[in-house]
Amino acid sequence: MSRVVAFGEIMLRLSTERHLRFSQSTAFGATYGGGEFNVCVSLANYGVNAEFVTRLPENEIGFSALKEIRKMNVESKNIVYGGERLGIYFLETGAGTRGSNVVYDRAHSAMSTIQKGQVDWEKVLEGAEWFHWSGITPAISESAAEACLEAIKVAHKLGVKISCDLNYRSKLWQYGKTPSEVMPEMLKYSNVILGDIDTAYFMLGIPKVNPNYQDEKSLPAVYDKLFELIPSLKVAATTLRYSVSASHQRIGGILYDGKAIYSAAVKEVTPVVDRVGSGDAFMGGLIYGLLEYNNNQRALDFAVAACCLKHTIAGDYNLVTLKEVENMIDGDGSALVSR
Amino acid sequence: MSRVVAFGEIMLRLSTERHLRFSQSTAFGATYGGGEFNVCVSLANYGVNAEFVTRLPENEIGFSALKEIRKMNVESKNIVYGGERLGIYFLETGAGTRGSNVVYDRAHSAMSTIQKGQVDWEKVLEGAEWFHWSGITPAISESAAEACLEAIKVAHKLGVKISCDLNYRSKLWQYGKTPSEVMPEMLKYSNVILGDIDTAYFMLGIPKVNPNYQDEKSLPAVYDKLFELIPSLKVAATTLRYSVSASHQRIGGILYDGKAIYSAAVKEVTPVVDRVGSGDAFMGGLIYGLLEYNNNQRALDFAVAACCLKHTIAGDYNLVTLKEVENMIDGDGSALVSR
Amino acid sequence: MSRVVAFGEIMLRLSTERHLRFSQSTAFGATYGGGEFNVCVSLANYGVNAEFVTRLPENEIGFSALKEIRKMNVESKNIVYGGERLGIYFLETGAGTRGSNVVYDRAHSAMSTIQKGQVDWEKVLEGAEWFHWSGITPAISESAAEACLEAIKVAHKLGVKISCDLNYRSKLWQYGKTPSEVMPEMLKYSNVILGDIDTAYFMLGIPKVNPNYQDEKSLPAVYDKLFELIPSLKVAATTLRYSVSASHQRIGGILYDGKAIYSAAVKEVTPVVDRVGSGDAFMGGLIYGLLEYNNNQRALDFAVAACCLKHTIAGDYNLVTLKEVENMIDGDGSALVSR
Amino acid sequence: MSRVVAFGEIMLRLSTERHLRFSQSTAFGATYGGGEFNVCVSLANYGVNAEFVTRLPENEIGFSALKEIRKMNVESKNIVYGGERLGIYFLETGAGTRGSNVVYDRAHSAMSTIQKGQVDWEKVLEGAEWFHWSGITPAISESAAEACLEAIKVAHKLGVKISCDLNYRSKLWQYGKTPSEVMPEMLKYSNVILGDIDTAYFMLGIPKVNPNYQDEKSLPAVYDKLFELIPSLKVAATTLRYSVSASHQRIGGILYDGKAIYSAAVKEVTPVVDRVGSGDAFMGGLIYGLLEYNNNQRALDFAVAACCLKHTIAGDYNLVTLKEVENMIDGDGSALVSR
Amino acid sequence: MSRVVAFGEIMLRLSTERHLRFSQSTAFGATYGGGEFNVCVSLANYGVNAEFVTRLPENEIGFSALKEIRKMNVESKNIVYGGERLGIYFLETGAGTRGSNVVYDRAHSAMSTIQKGQVDWEKVLEGAEWFHWSGITPAISESAAEACLEAIKVAHKLGVKISCDLNYRSKLWQYGKTPSEVMPEMLKYSNVILGDIDTAYFMLGIPKVNPNYQDEKSLPAVYDKLFELIPSLKVAATTLRYSVSASHQRIGGILYDGKAIYSAAVKEVTPVVDRVGSGDAFMGGLIYGLLEYNNNQRALDFAVAACCLKHTIAGDYNLVTLKEVENMIDGDGSALVSR
Amino acid sequence: MSRVVAFGEIMLRLSTERHLRFSQSTAFGATYGGGEFNVCVSLANYGVNAEFVTRLPENEIGFSALKEIRKMNVESKNIVYGGERLGIYFLETGAGTRGSNVVYDRAHSAMSTIQKGQVDWEKVLEGAEWFHWSGITPAISESAAEACLEAIKVAHKLGVKISCDLNYRSKLWQYGKTPSEVMPEMLKYSNVILGDIDTAYFMLGIPKVNPNYQDEKSLPAVYDKLFELIPSLKVAATTLRYSVSASHQRIGGILYDGKAIYSAAVKEVTPVVDRVGSGDAFMGGLIYGLLEYNNNQRALDFAVAACCLKHTIAGDYNLVTLKEVENMIDGDGSALVSR
Repeated sequence: MSRVVAFGEIMLRLSTERHLRFSQSTAFGATYGGGEFNVCVSLANYGVNAEFVTRLPENEIGFSALKEIRKMNVESKNIVYGGERLGIYFLETGAGTRGSNVVYDRAHSAMSTIQKGQVDWEKVLEGAEWFHWSGITPAISESAAEACLEAIKVAHKLGVKISCDLNYRSKLWQYGKTPSEVMPEMLKYSNVILGDIDTAYFMLGIPKVNPNYQDEKSLPAVYDKLFELIPSLKVAATTLRYSVSASHQRIGGILYDGKAIYSAAVKEVTPVVDRVGSGDAFMGGLIYGLLEYNNNQRALDFAVAACCLKHTIAGDYNLVTLKEVENMIDGDGSALVSR
Repeated sequence: MSRVVAFGEIMLRLSTERHLRFSQSTAFGATYGGGEFNVCVSLANYGVNAEFVTRLPENEIGFSALKEIRKMNVESKNIVYGGERLGIYFLETGAGTRGSNVVYDRAHSAMSTIQKGQVDWEKVLEGAEWFHWSGITPAISESAAEACLEAIKVAHKLGVKISCDLNYRSKLWQYGKTPSEVMPEMLKYSNVILGDIDTAYFMLGIPKVNPNYQDEKSLPAVYDKLFELIPSLKVAATTLRYSVSASHQRIGGILYDGKAIYSAAVKEVTPVVDRVGSGDAFMGGLIYGLLEYNNNQRALDFAVAACCLKHTIAGDYNLVTLKEVENMIDGDGSALVSR
Repeated sequence: MSRVVAFGEIMLRLSTERHLRFSQSTAFGATYGGGEFNVCVSLANYGVNAEFVTRLPENEIGFSALKEIRKMNVESKNIVYGGERLGIYFLETGAGTRGSNVVYDRAHSAMSTIQKGQVDWEKVLEGAEWFHWSGITPAISESAAEACLEAIKVAHKLGVKISCDLNYRSKLWQYGKTPSEVMPEMLKYSNVILGDIDTAYFMLGIPKVNPNYQDEKSLPAVYDKLFELIPSLKVAATTLRYSVSASHQRIGGILYDGKAIYSAAVKEVTPVVDRVGSGDAFMGGLIYGLLEYNNNQRALDFAVAACCLKHTIAGDYNLVTLKEVENMIDGDGSALVSR
Repeated sequence: MSRVVAFGEIMLRLSTERHLRFSQSTAFGATYGGGEFNVCVSLANYGVNAEFVTRLPENEIGFSALKEIRKMNVESKNIVYGGERLGIYFLETGAGTRGSNVVYDRAHSAMSTIQKGQVDWEKVLEGAEWFHWSGITPAISESAAEACLEAIKVAHKLGVKISCDLNYRSKLWQYGKTPSEVMPEMLKYSNVILGDIDTAYFMLGIPKVNPNYQDEKSLPAVYDKLFELIPSLKVAATTLRYSVSASHQRIGGILYDGKAIYSAAVKEVTPVVDRVGSGDAFMGGLIYGLLEYNNNQRALDFAVAACCLKHTIAGDYNLVTLKEVENMIDGDGSALVSR
Repeated sequence: MSRVVAFGEIMLRLSTERHLRFSQSTAFGATYGGGEFNVCVSLANYGVNAEFVTRLPENEIGFSALKEIRKMNVESKNIVYGGERLGIYFLETGAGTRGSNVVYDRAHSAMSTIQKGQVDWEKVLEGAEWFHWSGITPAISESAAEACLEAIKVAHKLGVKISCDLNYRSKLWQYGKTPSEVMPEMLKYSNVILGDIDTAYFMLGIPKVNPNYQDEKSLPAVYDKLFELIPSLKVAATTLRYSVSASHQRIGGILYDGKAIYSAAVKEVTPVVDRVGSGDAFMGGLIYGLLEYNNNQRALDFAVAACCLKHTIAGDYNLVTLKEVENMIDGDGSALVSR
Repeated sequence: MSRVVAFGEIMLRLSTERHLRFSQSTAFGATYGGGEFNVCVSLANYGVNAEFVTRLPENEIGFSALKEIRKMNVESKNIVYGGERLGIYFLETGAGTRGSNVVYDRAHSAMSTIQKGQVDWEKVLEGAEWFHWSGITPAISESAAEACLEAIKVAHKLGVKISCDLNYRSKLWQYGKTPSEVMPEMLKYSNVILGDIDTAYFMLGIPKVNPNYQDEKSLPAVYDKLFELIPSLKVAATTLRYSVSASHQRIGGILYDGKAIYSAAVKEVTPVVDRVGSGDAFMGGLIYGLLEYNNNQRALDFAVAACCLKHTIAGDYNLVTLKEVENMIDGDGSALVSR
């Protein structure tokens, strides 16, 4: 069983029920999630030995997040403790013509005040095969960026494969630095990058190229610069999303390995139960696929199928089994009752 | 900020949850709403100074309705008190091939026993720009019809603009008079009328004309008689609804100003979270648009967009902001997560 | 008013809410249902005098099922008591690309340990016009199969019409016999059989014929063997289901009376509120239609409309009125709000 | 099995949950109940053949009440249909120093507009042993009082035993007659009367006597006048309630049979889950006890125990078994877990 | 109608339901409250013209708090906007031997970063009779303390009466100053102080005196130093709480006006529905009593009764009417059902 | 950190909410628990390295139980898989005079069909300090009794301390053997036994002695026979429970170590949130106390305090921290809000 370590933030998610607006709600659903943790849950569900490293506050809300991590069978032994509060985000789930709305309340979180040196990465990453991080961690604070870079460097030194989900969020990056000042140094050790090419180029300080993802012939040229800039890069992938409405998505994906473009068939996703974390489900599926299948097409198909299934799952992470994802790839999509 | 006053009934709405039938329900969702109040909420959300006048019973159910009015930032200072009970309606929300079902229990309500003279309309309407009423008030009782006519006459005298949503409900009008005996006198002061033309003609005692709303060329002729009969009329508008199923609507709109026909593009609305009050959302959007935009096309587009968004909101009234409606008009409808 | 008796199992159904997965649920919705009982509820709703015979355990869970039977106006006076437990099934309702999932926990139920002779069928069926059973009862245990065969023989002797819903479930039939060892003797008294032809042939031990249900011309030949094998057979019918996704079904139906093929127009069913019991809703509609309409096309249309409406109803059985089904047959499907 | 018929009103009860106030509630628990129906449910739970006669509106709310009657195993076949609405009452459950609050919304109900002659009492009461009514029915309208008197006279003519729970409610009696104008004629056929003696005398137009229920010696003299005025009277009983707080009651009871005073030991009832219907639980227990025990002390003890248990049951009626009440009489009150 | 203005923080309160612990909760009840706002709600419920001044963030959570303020009929027009977030507190409601637990997450709130000069106090307090603040505001940040002192000085200048609830919270005061460095300057303008005398002396930097509140004779001496230090002081009051368990409190109160000690009878409060805000309910009752009764004993009794009733109300503030508090003072505490 | 291993059954618990009866419930709360697992949770909460061994079915209900075990930080790596179903118990929580009611549905569970040899106890118990089992396991089936005896013998061989909670349940023991045929062989290796002395003697086939637990002087003589029969016995303890009502308990405890009697002060427990598992909380506290305190009085006080706190916690196991139990021992019981 492979061992994968991810580093990032887990938050308390407070969501309105039944499409209510915030001001109509007399209760909020309370779950816990965050991009990198969501990837760990996907992997644990597929049988991978997944570990999540973060910083949690020593209060009952932090301990409740810890219980959730344990419930999901994600290793928590290297989590560090301290800081003021667990980050929160409020989610109002939209429908049809009304998009979902997120209100972040994650500033001053325990993770955002983590310091370089608080995690013993040599110990954590010993024997690991894969290290995963995302563009959210450097976006929340300078010290979190530094702590993440520290982890990346140790992973690189130990020969651990490194993946990054670019995850650009314009509402973050509030601490005075821009992505292009921070990300190039962090991305240069990557073996796998998830995100559309313009986001990658934006973070690396390179002008937009506006790729046509439908035109598979032209894509290698578009991607090649990225492979040049990051010599260790083996795979660049992106989800393709066509949003018909908040309740109806069409989902596909593209993967480039420096040699060939792989493309997954677009699938209809309607209704959308919960769209948050669907990119993390793709990432989790991609890591699993690359670790286990030795077949880039299958890895991409697995990632896309996992991403589609995530839209049917309430909460941040993708509560589906390996068999359910494989059935989705191999099945006819008719989603019959199993009985 | 414009000042708009509406007069009508607010009811306790008791609705089944999660598409349950009445006999399956061990609890009813409890909210408060009513056509003219719903219009006020829309306007208050857009920044208009909106006031609602009604009659509430002096019991805890009436006071709960009052608290809801206040919460929505609708002025309540001229509400009058007395009578036996707050009107109730029971709502069973359908899905797909099963339509929603309403059971009215509004007879003998405080509003239905209001009397002419109980509201000091000279005081209420002083300084107002707009007075709104609907065809529901004259439908519930003779005394309510008289009280409404009194308000209309004062509004007319004071030069306040008057709008009416025809809102014909066949289950009402039980007190011995027909619409054509009551409505012509009330409608003759209108500046804006919302409703399809055949409903208008029915209420005025004129034979059906079966307009083809798709044929914009023929519509002016169809509407002109209405403008003749009501010389003060400036705008007649109607929503166009194509019901694919209880969960899927197509919504458009038509506006005629005596000179030109304006038509709004039809939008897909699926799934439908709550269809009740979507006409009131259109009316609220139309009043706002006419007050603020000085552009009939924009006013109509605003009304249609507001109406579409209402279908995604649980409860009677349209809990959306000015910005959300404008984004819907100007956007691509993809309803992405805002984060 | 016709009198119809059904024999089978009623279970406690424990279902997750709002598309949650089992492991996310801190509560399960608790209702009661089972194929043959569901048929009784449909019939009682249409005004038929319906009676359900089963075996219930003498504990509070069994008595709660009994209260549900009474609530639904289904006669319960010939139910027998004893045994260890009420059967349970767990239901996780899917959405979109994720199908619903059923976990059975019905082994060792009171009904599965019923014995021949525990029900006085001569008394129960006296004066009845119709007896209904399904392929689930012989699938749960040998003694249940024997008890059911006993009922069938008495019904046959008394000249009561007999219908069977084949209801093949591969997860059942665990007690050492195959359908083709048990079903032929049971089916040979049938007047009406519901199920696709290959299931019928499988249960009778005859090779598959793979009928093309779209080709109405070829169907009589396909069905004729069934009519030969079961001389008392008057009607064979099947639902046609095209599953677009867990949330979107297309529903039609075929009926053959030994002379002519009847076919019902396919209807769109989306969203699906609850798909469980939709076959029972078809069966209930078919029995009603055959009893009341003397018109095979109308009977089939009624069954298909009832089946479609069931998809909008939470729980196992079809809580719709006769008028609602008839409106669906005769209406335009627009499912407007009734108010 | 004895047959008991009761006549009265059943209402929709809308209650706030978890001690919330009306204005805090976004949902109301929905159950159905009413004094005389509650008595029927008690009796049905004890194995008595209980029938409830009322008038229900022909809408979905009325039919939901009907389903509840059926669920409770109370015969409903002689219920009549018609009228505008089902009566409603709103209940806000108090706690500690805050008492519960009821808002009635029962005017204009189907039952309040019932007319003499709508029920065929000769048929209904044929073969019955007991007829029960309460002081609520004559309090809601003149026509209901007349319809009730009609039933009483038929019961008397057929030799059916008659019981009345005085149930004086000052908020009712709004139609222009006082109890002393209406009740004497109705009460004169009673065999059993439940209520404190001053209420009885008030309804009969006799001055207060302020009995000391603790002084069992003086009570026969206090009651004797009642037995003189109502020669058919066999038993007069009353609950004794000492209200420590909304959450803590002390419950006892007194019974006089014209010869001896029987007194039941006072029991502590805390916490109070739901106090509504506890008098009906006493009445149901008393009827059962008088029918089955031939022992006035046991009958009274049964009534008091049933009344105590009702305080632990949510909803209007007493969902306890015969065995549970008997265990309470005979047990030590320690209320251990049964497992 | 008197006009009272309060200044302080309103927070989102996230509470577990049904005594669940934080880690068991999949949803949190969401309400809004805070000491000084709670006082406003009490006053508005009693008919006082109450205004709340605070600073709210311009996001949907802040706007939801605003809607709650409006619902409660508390004037909100002078609220200022800005800052990062609405303060949050998590509440786990205990029972019996387990106390309730609060986790604060209020650092960095909009109110804690308010600055002197952001509120135009001359305008706000014009025409007001009373200004209320509490020891929480100077405890959250230095700038909040300064902003509060600014308000106090303007109130004093304009001759507005000033009350302070000392409300010492050891978990706050984290910004580097102690109460005795900040509070003396703020308290010196007070006319009414709520809190026990040792808290007052601690805040003023004076040694503990350990008063015996049962010994009314010795109390004037104990209080006199406070009156000396604060010459404008007219009334000092404190609640007396004896905590039997988390579910059972005994509540009394003491008031000293510089001349005489007033003492209120201790009342039993069990069960406790929600204890949070009971001090604010006392404060609201005291202000009302002092404004309206011109009778210190009545004012204190009113405050104690209000405080007791608050324990039966879910949420932070006291949703009771003037009449309910008066009934509690004048009644027998039996808390009968009102019907 | 000590390592403790427990062996037993975990069940799905389905409980009614808010004191509803089974037949009123449209949903059941779903949690997981069982005596020996509950002990593990207590220990894990106090910082002990606790492991639970059981047999789970390989279906989604079994996997949900597994997730709960992980969430509680209890080691699950030696759980074995197979069998038909997870045992279920239904719980109806009583109040006041109505006791809670349990309906078992645990026959045929995966654990009841476990076989000797399925667990590798040599491996499991290597390095463990303590092994815990209870009288429930031998009560459910003969093969479970054998599997448990196998574990006990290995524990004994490895020098692991052994504790047993007698937990006699008359509704179990249905497989043809009596406790006195099975238990003596199992109990003879015990170091710690929890249960009242008469239960111990009953299980060992010795006549009742009816000890007076209030008379501490006479207890050693009563216990000595037990110590004679079980030479390895070091500690016998029992909870003392006085049940005032279902909502009010008084809890104490007795411990005898062969030399001295230790007695814990009786504590009031009211209201009772959930009484199930309070004995397991005592057992968990006792094991912790004996492991950590080297002070029998402290160990007993800890067990009693833990048991009291459990009554305030919903669900089967005791979700309290070490600090909360210690505060309860050392505190004044006033259960103030912590803020």
